[in-house]
Amino acid sequence: MNESDAKTSALGPGKNGQPSRLALRRVLIDTYHENVAYMHRDCEVYRAEGFKALSKVEIRTNGHSILATLNVVDDAAIVACGELGLSKAAFAQLEAEDGHTVTVAQAEAPVSMGALHRKLGGERLRLDDFRAIVRDISTHQYSKIELTAFVVATNRDELDREEVQFLTEAMIEAGSRLDWRESLVVDKHCIGGIPGNRTSMLVVPIVAAHGMLCPKTSSRAITSPAGTADTMEVLADVELPIERLREIVHTHRGCLAWGGTANLSPADDVLISVERPLALDSPGQMVASILSKKIAAGSSHLVLDIPIGPSAKVRSMPEAQRLRRLFEYVARHLKLTLDVVITDGRQPIGFGIGPVLEARDVMRVLENDPRAPMDLRQKALRLAGRMLEADPDVRGGDGFAIARDILDSGRALAKMNDIIAAQGSRNFDPNHPTLGALSFEVRAHGAGVVSGIDNHHLAHIARFAGAPKVKEAGVDLCAKLGDEVKDGDLLYRVHASYPSDLEFARQACARSSGYRIGRAEDVPHVFVEF
Amino acid sequence: MNESDAKTSALGPGKNGQPSRLALRRVLIDTYHENVAYMHRDCEVYRAEGFKALSKVEIRTNGHSILATLNVVDDAAIVACGELGLSKAAFAQLEAEDGHTVTVAQAEAPVSMGALHRKLGGERLRLDDFRAIVRDISTHQYSKIELTAFVVATNRDELDREEVQFLTEAMIEAGSRLDWRESLVVDKHCIGGIPGNRTSMLVVPIVAAHGMLCPKTSSRAITSPAGTADTMEVLADVELPIERLREIVHTHRGCLAWGGTANLSPADDVLISVERPLALDSPGQMVASILSKKIAAGSSHLVLDIPIGPSAKVRSMPEAQRLRRLFEYVARHLKLTLDVVITDGRQPIGFGIGPVLEARDVMRVLENDPRAPMDLRQKALRLAGRMLEADPDVRGGDGFAIARDILDSGRALAKMNDIIAAQGSRNFDPNHPTLGALSFEVRAHGAGVVSGIDNHHLAHIARFAGAPKVKEAGVDLCAKLGDEVKDGDLLYRVHASYPSDLEFARQACARSSGYRIGRAEDVPHVFVEF
Repeated sequence: MNESDAKTSALGPGKNGQPSRLALRRVLIDTYHENVAYMHRDCEVYRAEGFKALSKVEIRTNGHSILATLNVVDDAAIVACGELGLSKAAFAQLEAEDGHTVTVAQAEAPVSMGALHRKLGGERLRLDDFRAIVRDISTHQYSKIELTAFVVATNRDELDREEVQFLTEAMIEAGSRLDWRESLVVDKHCIGGIPGNRTSMLVVPIVAAHGMLCPKTSSRAITSPAGTADTMEVLADVELPIERLREIVHTHRGCLAWGGTANLSPADDVLISVERPLALDSPGQMVASILSKKIAAGSSHLVLDIPIGPSAKVRSMPEAQRLRRLFEYVARHLKLTLDVVITDGRQPIGFGIGPVLEARDVMRVLENDPRAPMDLRQKALRLAGRMLEADPDVRGGDGFAIARDILDSGRALAKMNDIIAAQGSRNFDPNHPTLGALSFEVRAHGAGVVSGIDNHHLAHIARFAGAPKVKEAGVDLCAKLGDEVKDGDLLYRVHASYPSDLEFARQACARSSGYRIGRAEDVPHVFVEF
Repeated sequence: MNESDAKTSALGPGKNGQPSRLALRRVLIDTYHENVAYMHRDCEVYRAEGFKALSKVEIRTNGHSILATLNVVDDAAIVACGELGLSKAAFAQLEAEDGHTVTVAQAEAPVSMGALHRKLGGERLRLDDFRAIVRDISTHQYSKIELTAFVVATNRDELDREEVQFLTEAMIEAGSRLDWRESLVVDKHCIGGIPGNRTSMLVVPIVAAHGMLCPKTSSRAITSPAGTADTMEVLADVELPIERLREIVHTHRGCLAWGGTANLSPADDVLISVERPLALDSPGQMVASILSKKIAAGSSHLVLDIPIGPSAKVRSMPEAQRLRRLFEYVARHLKLTLDVVITDGRQPIGFGIGPVLEARDVMRVLENDPRAPMDLRQKALRLAGRMLEADPDVRGGDGFAIARDILDSGRALAKMNDIIAAQGSRNFDPNHPTLGALSFEVRAHGAGVVSGIDNHHLAHIARFAGAPKVKEAGVDLCAKLGDEVKDGDLLYRVHASYPSDLEFARQACARSSGYRIGRAEDVPHVFVEF
């Protein structure tokens, strides 16, 4: 035996298992949802602790503790010996100043690693396992590798319906929950995949004008050319402090805000950071993601829109019914009243794809403008009608007519204007929307009937054109399914603000217009009667 | 239409779909096997191209092209506007100088993404799919997320045996192949998990002394306290240029070198970078990893050691037989003659765990020292005997006696000394091995018979003590299965060179000694007769 007993508070490697001390340094690198720590290769601590690149370290100070993946650095301008660098998000979590002394040690594995390994081994997990996993995910204890492992191991049919319920419950518990102190709080949600589908911006004012509480928190686009929050932001501010949101909802019975400030189901945002690059969207993950957000947001009733079509997320009625049953199972066990509506997802809804173009369509519907897209109006009325029927005073089947009356009378427009004013108006003029100054047109080759419009491809074109980041970019459709076109007729117009965006969009259109021109009988069957 | 047609070779965002130009900068951050690109948030290119944190970009210069994951930076000391930073490994792949102009663009997805998505969807893949995936992996086109997705989606029984063969073939093709220009090239390999199991260092000199060609390339430890390369490095240099290796093998019929310089099955090393943190080691991945390395190294005959025991990788005979059949299926289709030997994996082999301690055991066996561990000697003779029987002139069943004769006569020692001298001797004295100066002892609580030794736990203790990075650290066992011990008898001694290492090891021993003291009949059944 020959070891020193001296404890040290100086910077340097620890003795007797004491963690090593380093000076904290903020490294201005944005590593998104992964915590990264930077340590110099010649740092005595790095040497003595036997750390390895990509190993996980635990950093503590002031009673805070975070885990991070270690990157080894050979440039003292980034981190010097005796310093511990942290990526921006990791630094923020530690709530300490630059230069503060932190301790660093090999991290113990997150407590839920055992449960993750059992899932990787194909086992069924219990509620407590999901709680442990989701807690570790939402507190950023998982590396990107571990996150991906969880997402892939729970992909497809790896989760049974009870496990999906457990996952949903765990995701709700890991974040904040809003309580509106009313028994009836209605919301609607679409599983996504249909460009231009901005029904929320019509449904909320209709339902709120009826007096129902509809505090809609929406997401920004993840892979689509616009989310409701992106489009609403054309008209009004959407990033509101939660207290301001409460006041608006209290006064106006509704809002259309971005949900990111409320810490609802925070694990969902972390999971999306790996689901998005892998384009994974399995039924179990979709159900847990949507229902955890909605329940955490305090909804008691949810109308869920599942569109079907050849280029929609769901492509057949049996698939839609399977998904519906999974949503209903989980909702029932978590005491959310759920009304699933299966809708026509064969083509984009409305004319515009992209924030400004969609805002134009929405305002024209509210203003009963003859140029308003009828499909958007009809779909919004159907969904609003179903939500109104959650009101015990509305008779089954009467919802649609009530919704139409609210829209036609201008009460929905008045309510929307109130909400816009309350959130902070951006003075958008739907009669003169500012569109991207660069544009090109795509025209029909040959005559016939529009027999197919590819949702994915049109969404891609709008994204290449710059949407949603460039609000005035996107695609403006001039022909829809079933329309007769002659050779050279205009199919759609693409708008962009930057030449490179325009060129990317043009190349995408050159590969395919996304339109199929055929015979009337080639138009795909409407799966739904609704 | 309103767009500029001017082409530009100045730095800045591209026009008309031309890729954007930036000045290359080496960022001295070691991100292991993942290429990372760093771009300043205010860089005009970042803004104009609509890149996102974690999106993948393609960087080109001089006819080279690499893909990298983008990290956004807010510190001009790391990268300034107009610069593109690359992590160390990524910079090296591009083979360009600091300051060189590179073009950067949104990356097209790797060509194998379609195949990866089909695997994620549960489909069976064809040989060409595996070729595309493995080519993309070995050229670093996959992000950590995509790599993990592939590893998890091919985990457990997700690959059928033909798919394992395809994966193995693809992994061989993606790297270099050694050709020794002889019809009989023998090798041995153990699937791992048993500490102290250094039979290769005995088998190679025995077999080479017999005149068979045995060019053994070994790995360093990944999760164990020592790999053959780590232990051999105590005696001789192991990092040899491939041409020097050829000369040694030509002269001495054998070598014991590190395989990392030869670019054999390079995808394997990339896959291990995510399998290791997840502790994934499924049968399919194990077979593809081992057989691709061995076939690429030019082996015609392989003796494969599968140890069974309660704390070994394989825990039952049926499991070992299933694994054996999978190895045999793939080997047969890839024309490798395979001889699987199922061995006793109930406890560590030999006395020492850690590079110096294991080198001491190996040299004592070669020197016929009475202190040599008999289990290591016996196991090495059995394996060498099986390899010798690949020689058409050796009669079935005679291998063991020939191996013993070579060992007992000192010819194996002489051959080992030749190989050590050829690779570059490090002048190790097995009679006076330099062990870590700090140590503590672990003693029996209560009397009885050693009825269990946990391979994992002993390996962990040796790693906490510093092995394999600290060569003189490790665990020296003084009692093995079936030995009678009295209360207070020495079970093992732990050696370390750093106080913090010693303390970590001490804490691990305090949690559990890894030994079970019970009755003679508690000693687990020997699964194998061998």
